Amino acid sequence: MGASAVNCTIAVDTMGGDKGPAEFIRGLFYAVEELKLEGEFILVGKEKLLRRLLKVRKLTIDPDRIHIHNATEVIGMDEKPIQALKRKKDSSMVQALSLLKDGKAQALVSCGNTGALMAGGTLRMRPLPGVDRPALATIVPSRKKPFVLIDVGANPESTALNLVHNATLGSNYAKAALGISQPRVGLLTIGTEEGKGNSLINETHGYLQKINGVINYVGPIEGFQLFDGNIDVVVCDGFVGNIVLKSSEALFGFIGSTIKEELLRNTKRKIGAALSASAFKDMKVRLSPDQHSGAPLLGLQGNILKSHGSSNYVAIANAMRIASELVKHDMIDSIRSDINQANALIETAESE
Amino acid sequence: MGASAVNCTIAVDTMGGDKGPAEFIRGLFYAVEELKLEGEFILVGKEKLLRRLLKVRKLTIDPDRIHIHNATEVIGMDEKPIQALKRKKDSSMVQALSLLKDGKAQALVSCGNTGALMAGGTLRMRPLPGVDRPALATIVPSRKKPFVLIDVGANPESTALNLVHNATLGSNYAKAALGISQPRVGLLTIGTEEGKGNSLINETHGYLQKINGVINYVGPIEGFQLFDGNIDVVVCDGFVGNIVLKSSEALFGFIGSTIKEELLRNTKRKIGAALSASAFKDMKVRLSPDQHSGAPLLGLQGNILKSHGSSNYVAIANAMRIASELVKHDMIDSIRSDINQANALIETAESE
Repeated sequence: MGASAVNCTIAVDTMGGDKGPAEFIRGLFYAVEELKLEGEFILVGKEKLLRRLLKVRKLTIDPDRIHIHNATEVIGMDEKPIQALKRKKDSSMVQALSLLKDGKAQALVSCGNTGALMAGGTLRMRPLPGVDRPALATIVPSRKKPFVLIDVGANPESTALNLVHNATLGSNYAKAALGISQPRVGLLTIGTEEGKGNSLINETHGYLQKINGVINYVGPIEGFQLFDGNIDVVVCDGFVGNIVLKSSEALFGFIGSTIKEELLRNTKRKIGAALSASAFKDMKVRLSPDQHSGAPLLGLQGNILKSHGSSNYVAIANAMRIASELVKHDMIDSIRSDINQANALIETAESE
Repeated sequence: MGASAVNCTIAVDTMGGDKGPAEFIRGLFYAVEELKLEGEFILVGKEKLLRRLLKVRKLTIDPDRIHIHNATEVIGMDEKPIQALKRKKDSSMVQALSLLKDGKAQALVSCGNTGALMAGGTLRMRPLPGVDRPALATIVPSRKKPFVLIDVGANPESTALNLVHNATLGSNYAKAALGISQPRVGLLTIGTEEGKGNSLINETHGYLQKINGVINYVGPIEGFQLFDGNIDVVVCDGFVGNIVLKSSEALFGFIGSTIKEELLRNTKRKIGAALSASAFKDMKVRLSPDQHSGAPLLGLQGNILKSHGSSNYVAIANAMRIASELVKHDMIDSIRSDINQANALIETAESE
């Protein structure tokens, strides 16, 4: 592989998305041309198909920066993760994971089967020392600025220590992906008075206070504060986080369709809607921003980003951009050190 | 007290809401005049004030149906529940609870301090035999029809048996408050495949299958299905339910303010917004409907309805309407019998 300004190669699982590999090629060009992404790319998938798709494009990217790694199989969205991983060794996802494992790539972007990517990622890349369970983070818009919600589904059965690790992982992700130097970390709960919530939350709250310094813990927050934008990292377990994320997406869709229904109810409203149509477009861009697509599986010895199955080229390009940020920021090294510090502080406190 | 068509007397804690007792008087008249509510009402609060407020209204209600019970104190919204209950024996909330306890009222409606009402309600009315913990239910709009979400905050540390009871309580509430004869009950989780979710959910799922017949259990549902309207009762623990409810309210507000911002960005949009303004009004009515205000604390030996602190007279009247439905449906008797059946079925299954 050729030299590049940043020593970063991103493996891209091009077969996993709903829109097919052409969208990934488009995403790659968008990433390089519009987002000025540096480094190299390994497109993992059916080689012939990928070569054909590349051929039809005006090649504006140094060809030395684009590599193709052949993979003949595809893991479907509805396949059972572990079975699929075992059976389809030559799938684009398994092959991309191997490139990451072997150090041929520093990050992996996939829009494929989430369960398979989480299981495969955890099995191949292993959790960092001191981390029991990886966590899936995502970036959510708010009134002020986007925030990191972690965990959104990797670990539905968390211990207090898992949640402390989520806080540490999310804080590092906010630094790398959102460029916040001292991310404000909040613990999602019900009722912010001391002693409210549940025993898991109370234990976690105690731990988080002890590792202040490693992270910038500002305390518990309630559901009604979620979209205020005063917190950069919202910590919860994967059960709560997944339900909050999915139900929020569902509510967003439900509100949108209700507005649409009401706007189409009579002619006057229809004219009004036509005049203000751009407002709804802009709102949609603000609230479901493709630039924050890509949910990293954090706590592993490798950078793995999951983007939505339905990601378009802009979302894919931005997932690549975030992946390269994680590499540039040496996020994994920084997580490794923070986890060690956090664990040591808690151990000391426990033994006192 | 005079005779009435339905033997139902509702105690109304008139001092608890943000808008003061005048709103409750207005709500009472709206309930009787517009919603054709039958039965009697005991207004609990400062007698002189209440008499003065009643005097200024044209009395369209049979005066025998309105009673006043003097209570000189008020529990504030920010007071610590247990302390407030102990110190303020002559508060409108404590006095209203006494009327319920003594059988002078068959239901209680309050817009006051939620924690105090939950604690006071549980202490005075006691859980029904076989129920360990009461649950707070609320009615949420969806694409098709409103559904019951239970528990939204009473019990943040649930066992599988607690969740089974939530399902039974919620099912009875949907029958009484929404008039659904065989409510479809779903268990909120992440990933609906067998074995996904967490151990609490898996255990609960097993139990719920065993009590099918007592309730109409249709299986697990995911966050993204929440607003589809295919489920009449969504079961979760009070931690998850409270976060889902509060974050949904927050998201609704956030989307609303974002739309507003975008619509005011230029003149064309402003004109469009003016023409379609009624659509937004109608949407708001559909999505935050006052007719479903009032969250019952279920599983107790008395009907206690909590309405939002900021409830207006329509919301208050509708909370009274729902309270009277619960009495008419003998909901508590029906819960008592269903809980006994559910507990027996689970005990039998456990001992096999």
